[in-house]
Amino acid sequence: MAQPILHHRTPEFRSVLARVEENLKYVFQTSGEVFILAASGTGAMEAAVASILQGRAPVLTVEGGKFGERWGELCEAYGAEAVRHKVEWGHGIRPEEMEALLEERDDYQAIFLTHSETSTGTALNLQQIAHIIRKRSQALIVVDGITSVGALPLYMDDWGVDMVVAGSQKGFMCPPGLSFVACGERALQAIAAGDRPRYYFDLRRAHSAMKKTDTPFTPAVTLILGVDEALQMIREEGLENVWARHRRLASATRAAIGALGLPLFSDAPSDSVTAVRIPEELRDRDLVGKIKARGCIVAGGQAHLKGKIFRIAHLGYFDEGDMLVILGALEEALAECGWDVRPGAALQVFQETVDQLRQGR
Amino acid sequence: MAQPILHHRTPEFRSVLARVEENLKYVFQTSGEVFILAASGTGAMEAAVASILQGRAPVLTVEGGKFGERWGELCEAYGAEAVRHKVEWGHGIRPEEMEALLEERDDYQAIFLTHSETSTGTALNLQQIAHIIRKRSQALIVVDGITSVGALPLYMDDWGVDMVVAGSQKGFMCPPGLSFVACGERALQAIAAGDRPRYYFDLRRAHSAMKKTDTPFTPAVTLILGVDEALQMIREEGLENVWARHRRLASATRAAIGALGLPLFSDAPSDSVTAVRIPEELRDRDLVGKIKARGCIVAGGQAHLKGKIFRIAHLGYFDEGDMLVILGALEEALAECGWDVRPGAALQVFQETVDQLRQGR
Repeated sequence: MAQPILHHRTPEFRSVLARVEENLKYVFQTSGEVFILAASGTGAMEAAVASILQGRAPVLTVEGGKFGERWGELCEAYGAEAVRHKVEWGHGIRPEEMEALLEERDDYQAIFLTHSETSTGTALNLQQIAHIIRKRSQALIVVDGITSVGALPLYMDDWGVDMVVAGSQKGFMCPPGLSFVACGERALQAIAAGDRPRYYFDLRRAHSAMKKTDTPFTPAVTLILGVDEALQMIREEGLENVWARHRRLASATRAAIGALGLPLFSDAPSDSVTAVRIPEELRDRDLVGKIKARGCIVAGGQAHLKGKIFRIAHLGYFDEGDMLVILGALEEALAECGWDVRPGAALQVFQETVDQLRQGR
Repeated sequence: MAQPILHHRTPEFRSVLARVEENLKYVFQTSGEVFILAASGTGAMEAAVASILQGRAPVLTVEGGKFGERWGELCEAYGAEAVRHKVEWGHGIRPEEMEALLEERDDYQAIFLTHSETSTGTALNLQQIAHIIRKRSQALIVVDGITSVGALPLYMDDWGVDMVVAGSQKGFMCPPGLSFVACGERALQAIAAGDRPRYYFDLRRAHSAMKKTDTPFTPAVTLILGVDEALQMIREEGLENVWARHRRLASATRAAIGALGLPLFSDAPSDSVTAVRIPEELRDRDLVGKIKARGCIVAGGQAHLKGKIFRIAHLGYFDEGDMLVILGALEEALAECGWDVRPGAALQVFQETVDQLRQGR
């Protein structure tokens, strides 16, 4: 931290920035532009909302958890007429539900979705939902990919998705503080026409600066250097292989949870985070505390899910060893809470599942 | 970068955050609150503007350079009726000029100032100007301190300044990506009453989160850890000593520039950056390029000052050795451009001045 920082207006930094921009397009699978902001993921969500809203045109937000609700809050903060469609937490929106919504009205300026809802460990079938929207509406499709990009399959251009937001600290395996907004052609047009007050998050500025391989304001240099490394690692491994690795880790984790007799919370579990119900029958409720006491990080539930679920992350730099450590701690903590656990049960199933998936079975 | 990051919702990180908040109050010399944003300095400027503007009340921006203009642009982006008072670049606003402005009208909701204008190397006599405003108007005094906090003397509360904005990469000696908004009591009241669309930069959210020693959105953890170290260093050295060190470095740099026969650009030079006129008579105009070719970073002029000035920074982690390296390169580059230079002239005067100031002469 105390070392002199590579200055952001030097040829050296510009060449890093050019490579990062190119590799970001690969990770988002877009031929559009990917803007880099010195801000956490919510800042990038705000940049999307603030940059595209226009006049009084209505927007639709699909909210199945805390991060879906953030889209609704942002749209309202910027004075949009927001139809805030609630989906039961732990469920993705069903195709027929989306069709019915668009049957009712299809004049939305934009539809805001969450690819992987971290608060509930739920993945959206984005390809299918985007296809339905594209068929029936001119609405821009704007996706929170903060915990999905670099973890779950995403072909932004091919699927007809217009904007995807992501952050440095999840699939990109870096410290937080940097975020990204990927924009297809239609999104770039909308940005040029937006009419809301904005400055730091004004993507028109980012777009002009990018034409000179620059950023409109001082970039978070060290974080960009970190992301540059991470992107090169992803490129080397191959995006499809990165996705497959996440699927393997997630599938094995879910199988291990099943072996412990614990129910998953979500009916469409995400490959970036697994949400597990804490069984009603469990005598001692402080399961999360007991796992943490063993030096492992798991997250509890948020809002009305507090005390009802816990969540295990397995995206970005997590590997199989990390999962074994967490599952080992979980086995012990569960036993301490009075749950009937055969030591090693989860670990064994985890290993077996990984082995099967590696062999393509 | 690849190491697991201290999670931001752990007791360990909360205790860092509490210490950082306490030390920030010391550096800003305020008993108010200092909010921490994952954004560069412009983001913090936007947070100030977006959070306090209310209704159609007019604001005054004092613009004597590129960063002063940024206040005007931000206020206009957020729909304020902005009186944008221009000051000739290289000059601070004169006391009688400020008095005349307030004579004309005193009903401003806020007055936006720049403590150290980096584009021109000019310092504002903030104590004096704030005193004039406090006597004649209820306007909030909002100050861009991005290149002054931790470098130039500032007693925010004592001087009646309501809000000061700063960034991690200047006086705090850290990589860019983090910024701060210090708010006194009147500023906190204004934030509660503001009516502009905002979310990520909504300081009400930062204020609520701070009551639980938390941040509203994922913080830039690694940058906060860096700033924690820097603040402890500043605290140990003592703020007055840090200011004196900057004054010494700046005075000696100015004396050295004088010894080379080069005129300063500013009539109120800042102790954080020295702007130097490139003499009209200089045959070869590429002085900046020749200094850079020697591995030193100096900045050229911006906007209409392009090719007319160069700027030497001496804030944050710069020490006397760094200045010697730059002045040595400057001597050589000047000679190469056809200027009459006695080798070592600037270096000798620099050393003599430092020596005199150290001995309190």
